[in-house]
Amino acid sequence: MLDVCLLGTGGMMPLPHRALTSLMVRYNGSSMLIDCGEGTQVAIKRQGWSFKPIDIICFTHFHADHISGLPGLLLTIGNAERTEPLLMVGPKRLEKVVNSLRVIAPELPFEIKFKELSDEEESFSWGDVKVDAFRLNHNVTCYGYSLSLDRAGKFDIEKARSQNIPMEYWNPLQKGSIIETENGIYTPDMVLGPSRKGIKLTYCTDTRPVSNIEKHAKGSDLFICEGMYGEPDKQQKAVEHKHMTMREAAEIAKTADVGEMWLTHYSPSMVRPSQYIDDIKKIFPRTVAAKDLTDTVLNFQD
Amino acid sequence: MLDVCLLGTGGMMPLPHRALTSLMVRYNGSSMLIDCGEGTQVAIKRQGWSFKPIDIICFTHFHADHISGLPGLLLTIGNAERTEPLLMVGPKRLEKVVNSLRVIAPELPFEIKFKELSDEEESFSWGDVKVDAFRLNHNVTCYGYSLSLDRAGKFDIEKARSQNIPMEYWNPLQKGSIIETENGIYTPDMVLGPSRKGIKLTYCTDTRPVSNIEKHAKGSDLFICEGMYGEPDKQQKAVEHKHMTMREAAEIAKTADVGEMWLTHYSPSMVRPSQYIDDIKKIFPRTVAAKDLTDTVLNFQD
Repeated sequence: MLDVCLLGTGGMMPLPHRALTSLMVRYNGSSMLIDCGEGTQVAIKRQGWSFKPIDIICFTHFHADHISGLPGLLLTIGNAERTEPLLMVGPKRLEKVVNSLRVIAPELPFEIKFKELSDEEESFSWGDVKVDAFRLNHNVTCYGYSLSLDRAGKFDIEKARSQNIPMEYWNPLQKGSIIETENGIYTPDMVLGPSRKGIKLTYCTDTRPVSNIEKHAKGSDLFICEGMYGEPDKQQKAVEHKHMTMREAAEIAKTADVGEMWLTHYSPSMVRPSQYIDDIKKIFPRTVAAKDLTDTVLNFQD
Repeated sequence: MLDVCLLGTGGMMPLPHRALTSLMVRYNGSSMLIDCGEGTQVAIKRQGWSFKPIDIICFTHFHADHISGLPGLLLTIGNAERTEPLLMVGPKRLEKVVNSLRVIAPELPFEIKFKELSDEEESFSWGDVKVDAFRLNHNVTCYGYSLSLDRAGKFDIEKARSQNIPMEYWNPLQKGSIIETENGIYTPDMVLGPSRKGIKLTYCTDTRPVSNIEKHAKGSDLFICEGMYGEPDKQQKAVEHKHMTMREAAEIAKTADVGEMWLTHYSPSMVRPSQYIDDIKKIFPRTVAAKDLTDTVLNFQD
């Protein structure tokens, strides 16, 4: 139900086979982007996904490797004939930064709306998807994002019958409608069993490990997390630059007990991130050293 | 002597195998860039050339496909530990546009100097290379650039002897020094034969055909020119969007009698620019449908 593609996995500067950081998620005809480094629009073309349905772009922070691809992307979305407003979400100064970059993309056929985050945690909706933004710990204000899609319980025919709910209301109630009649109000919980496990995706870069990450990653089917450094001797560098090692990411994944973890946002000095994975899997076995265009579909479990 | 590489050959938007417009030229340990679309820094890495010696960046104009790669490139040049000033050249508003883009690259270890062009034609020096900027005809102010490297005449031993020039001055005079002595002033022309053919490179995009181009392309060993459209039925579109067809570019190359022409700045709608080349060669045989990383070395002849 959530179509997920890591468009770029590079931190700091792009490499020939590693575009800068960006994630694209598709749900129900709408697309969301988180971060938009240089190379994002080419990666979307490579993946064969469309520009026009991009309804929302979230930014973790405004370092160039997370936003440098924005002006070109906006022009390309415009060329795809989008006219509906596009929402941008990110830390304070978002509107100022975006408008400054738009010196080379001043005319667009769609409006840009801005939602600037200021609290430690903030929630908003992307259609049926609940988005939780939460503060990270980088050298500038930075947010992680969790996307949650709830799933209602199964239709419980015995429950519906036992409450004498007229059969004509069963289907709309199952689909979530509330029905008011002369005999009273019928709500979906009257015909549904207990809620079932939904889908959750958490994305988190650039940051030191903080408890906020575990809290929000908890229960995620997919946890996408920076693994800036794989080399054991880069721990001090990670602390200094307010980044994370692969090892630290794996410790978080383990505590949060996520379904799978994809590492991303690699240092350009790290030529083959996968070479460290065997050691990292000893901490958290379901770790993947993601590459550009690593993708998956997150479905409701049956 | 001039090391030339077309980093990107795309107009408007980048494609998976076609970065946006940029040319890099190396001479005598120094590098010049003309235009810097998205993907420029990755193309430089692909070509294996260095960031630190980029001393000068010229812009034809400020449409995003010619400048969107700048903020990332500046950060990468900074990461290459450049501390010497970098000169930027371009139409009026250059400093404003660059500073606006630098909202995501505010801190650099080198100074940026600006030279804003306002006349129809302006000349300046890049070391021994003379650069001529000349006005084109696009829907915003746009300049083409010619790079010329002069070549002095051969040392003429008979000429030196006949004027009784002391032998100790022959070598410095040949190298271009002027020597003042009690017996008079000696100048290089006193020991050199007639000037020999130098090297000339002309770069020209985005524009309608104008006489200024022929004038400056004249005598170029290499003429790099936009060939936005190859399809015969795109003539009207070229006029409307103030671009050139391959055919129009070839007519200019023919009149200017250049050594070779590379076409570039292709419309993203044109999947295989080379498919039109046979027809274009009927107008100007020494035409190349350049691709990303097409390169050459322009040497003095013989």
